[in-house]
Amino acid sequence: MDWMFAERTTSARRSVIRELLKLTERPEIISFAGGLPDPQTFPREFLAKVAADEILNNSAKSLQYTTTEGKLPLREPLSRWFAQDGMNFPPDQIVVTSAAQQGLDLVAKVFLNPGDAVFVALPTYIGAIQAFQAFQATLVGVPMEDDGMDLGALRAAVRSTRKAGHTPKLVYVVPDFQNPSGHTWSRGKRLELLEIAREEDLLVVEDMPYRWLRFVGEPIPPVAALDKEGRTILLFTFSKIFAPGLRLGALAGPKQVVEKVVTLKQATDLCTSSLNQRLAIRFLQEYDVAGHIQFIADLYRKKCSAMLEALARHMPAEERIRWTKPEGGLFLWVELPQGINTEKMLYRAIEHKVAYVIGAPFFVDGSGHNTLRLSFSSASCQDIEEGIRRLGQVVREELAALPAPQGTGNKG
Amino acid sequence: MDWMFAERTTSARRSVIRELLKLTERPEIISFAGGLPDPQTFPREFLAKVAADEILNNSAKSLQYTTTEGKLPLREPLSRWFAQDGMNFPPDQIVVTSAAQQGLDLVAKVFLNPGDAVFVALPTYIGAIQAFQAFQATLVGVPMEDDGMDLGALRAAVRSTRKAGHTPKLVYVVPDFQNPSGHTWSRGKRLELLEIAREEDLLVVEDMPYRWLRFVGEPIPPVAALDKEGRTILLFTFSKIFAPGLRLGALAGPKQVVEKVVTLKQATDLCTSSLNQRLAIRFLQEYDVAGHIQFIADLYRKKCSAMLEALARHMPAEERIRWTKPEGGLFLWVELPQGINTEKMLYRAIEHKVAYVIGAPFFVDGSGHNTLRLSFSSASCQDIEEGIRRLGQVVREELAALPAPQGTGNKG
Repeated sequence: MDWMFAERTTSARRSVIRELLKLTERPEIISFAGGLPDPQTFPREFLAKVAADEILNNSAKSLQYTTTEGKLPLREPLSRWFAQDGMNFPPDQIVVTSAAQQGLDLVAKVFLNPGDAVFVALPTYIGAIQAFQAFQATLVGVPMEDDGMDLGALRAAVRSTRKAGHTPKLVYVVPDFQNPSGHTWSRGKRLELLEIAREEDLLVVEDMPYRWLRFVGEPIPPVAALDKEGRTILLFTFSKIFAPGLRLGALAGPKQVVEKVVTLKQATDLCTSSLNQRLAIRFLQEYDVAGHIQFIADLYRKKCSAMLEALARHMPAEERIRWTKPEGGLFLWVELPQGINTEKMLYRAIEHKVAYVIGAPFFVDGSGHNTLRLSFSSASCQDIEEGIRRLGQVVREELAALPAPQGTGNKG
Repeated sequence: MDWMFAERTTSARRSVIRELLKLTERPEIISFAGGLPDPQTFPREFLAKVAADEILNNSAKSLQYTTTEGKLPLREPLSRWFAQDGMNFPPDQIVVTSAAQQGLDLVAKVFLNPGDAVFVALPTYIGAIQAFQAFQATLVGVPMEDDGMDLGALRAAVRSTRKAGHTPKLVYVVPDFQNPSGHTWSRGKRLELLEIAREEDLLVVEDMPYRWLRFVGEPIPPVAALDKEGRTILLFTFSKIFAPGLRLGALAGPKQVVEKVVTLKQATDLCTSSLNQRLAIRFLQEYDVAGHIQFIADLYRKKCSAMLEALARHMPAEERIRWTKPEGGLFLWVELPQGINTEKMLYRAIEHKVAYVIGAPFFVDGSGHNTLRLSFSSASCQDIEEGIRRLGQVVREELAALPAPQGTGNKG
């Protein structure tokens, strides 16, 4: 049958990565591919106890429908939490979402007409690319530097995009320990981003799934905290500090925006799971959340260090081979010499029983074929050492197979 | 600030009903307004036990991310369940959704370009109206008869809509105990609907939240079971037979359609809650589901009978006052004489400490101001008797306040 699908389905694509992930699921493979939290970070005993209690003794609130904007006893502590971090969002400017991915969907749904421009980093989070593409956005890639987007390039991109007839609407950023690069934006760049947003009448979408998982250095205020004008939409998720299987997060922003988001969320799923909201309420009320986050950050610090040490030890010493040194989060990012295609290399890696995520799908401009993402969150330190040893071998073989020597390594 | 919202936000509306519901929440009011399942139908003890067990002993599956299409051990028993009812959807033609409302959102997202036509009953489920409006559908209302849509009117509407330049795409139906009318489609009309769909190249979206809750008469095969051609998309939900707070359902349909739905679901929320999926898996594996559904149907049969008896006793005897006699589900539907506006009447009802849902928002053609929906699912039989007595009084006062006598009741 000839299905008359909507036009938006032609730009919507399923993640290549998810297809490739299937290759990496064999148990003998040490995988740095999936961006999954370490299951030992799930507060199982506590959760089991409060889940049983909520279901047995509070079923009118845990098993029944709830409001579209989400339970007030969840929005209130979130508001206080955000305030501790300098972000001023009263509960009526917060809507509970089915994790941050739904926040992205709703932002796209509320703001994007086909062709409207969204500015994203090169590379950027794939789920954001998918959410914006599903609403036929014009995605404009802006090069990433160690301390955030190249903001000169952003300014130029906004202007040329407008000239080309597309309405610039959103800048999507993950300022803390970005997925996939691990980069963190400087305070200066955060401020300048807001300046550009004001000048060019853009909204900033600040996604902060990893913000609380800083394991080195001092926190830098979120863009939403530096924003005096109310141009920032904040996306929060419980996935990395509680449990991703609950699909729980929040969107916060200007009041008018949040009202539109609630209207469209009602049409999208009526409300987010009452039970899971109740579990998060109990988590925020009764659990040592700060201690728990510290525990997770400590765990990932160890694993990240293990990976950085292993990379230093096992990767070929070549200036053209570089990786980031993240101050938090779950990921680091590797650049290999031009000419190495990490998608092709993945098959060699799988032969060597190690896996990663290819970099290209994180780039909206078709570049990044020589890059890859390593997640240090789920493997053990021992597996990290062994897996990176294998990866070093893979890269060595790829270098050897390059058609012609690419110089002496003096030029990246 | 002047937010540049997407065009679709101008057609997206928050439900008036939800705003009016706030008026009805005072404890002294007997409310037939909300469409909430009776909380005594939630299998609390079982759920508490398996939730604790899944969280403690199966956290890799219950608390971690899961696949976008949903867990296979959930799609498999759903496939078998559908098969028992004559519907042939193998597991790879089923996607787990965050309840049926997300199914509606995804169908709209996959099929609708702005202006595309969706045919709905007069009246129809408001959540469907919202989902389709959010994607700028042209909603075309088709009169409802006791045994289903007026299919002559549907044929005419499809043709005139096409002539007007809109592409007819979907017919949305709730064939069993429709929300809000309580009507059930005859087998003949189900077959004729498929014939029209084939002739006019339409897809049927069959929403069946209440199908399993039949308490009178024999089941009629679902449209999806009568469909030999694969033109039906089925929306299933656990909300009325398990617990709505889990936000769990499924969409089943032709393979190509389901593939598109999965692609767009990935962009929408990555996946539906793993924990809640695991709870449903255990429910289907270990609970006496058939017995449980029988228990719910018995409960609602009693309540529905109580309401029908109370209506016969307390409503003014007037031919222009009519109500449906549903064979299942949660709702019945009342038509009052033209000239009575049930929205205005609601304030009088609240004075009399009884509440209902006004009918007009269920009509996409602006009609229905003399109608209202009564839910018999949550009130006790005692409250049903007293609440309908109050409603009878309200209607009597409204009749008395009508500007001029409207005849002797010989003409409706």
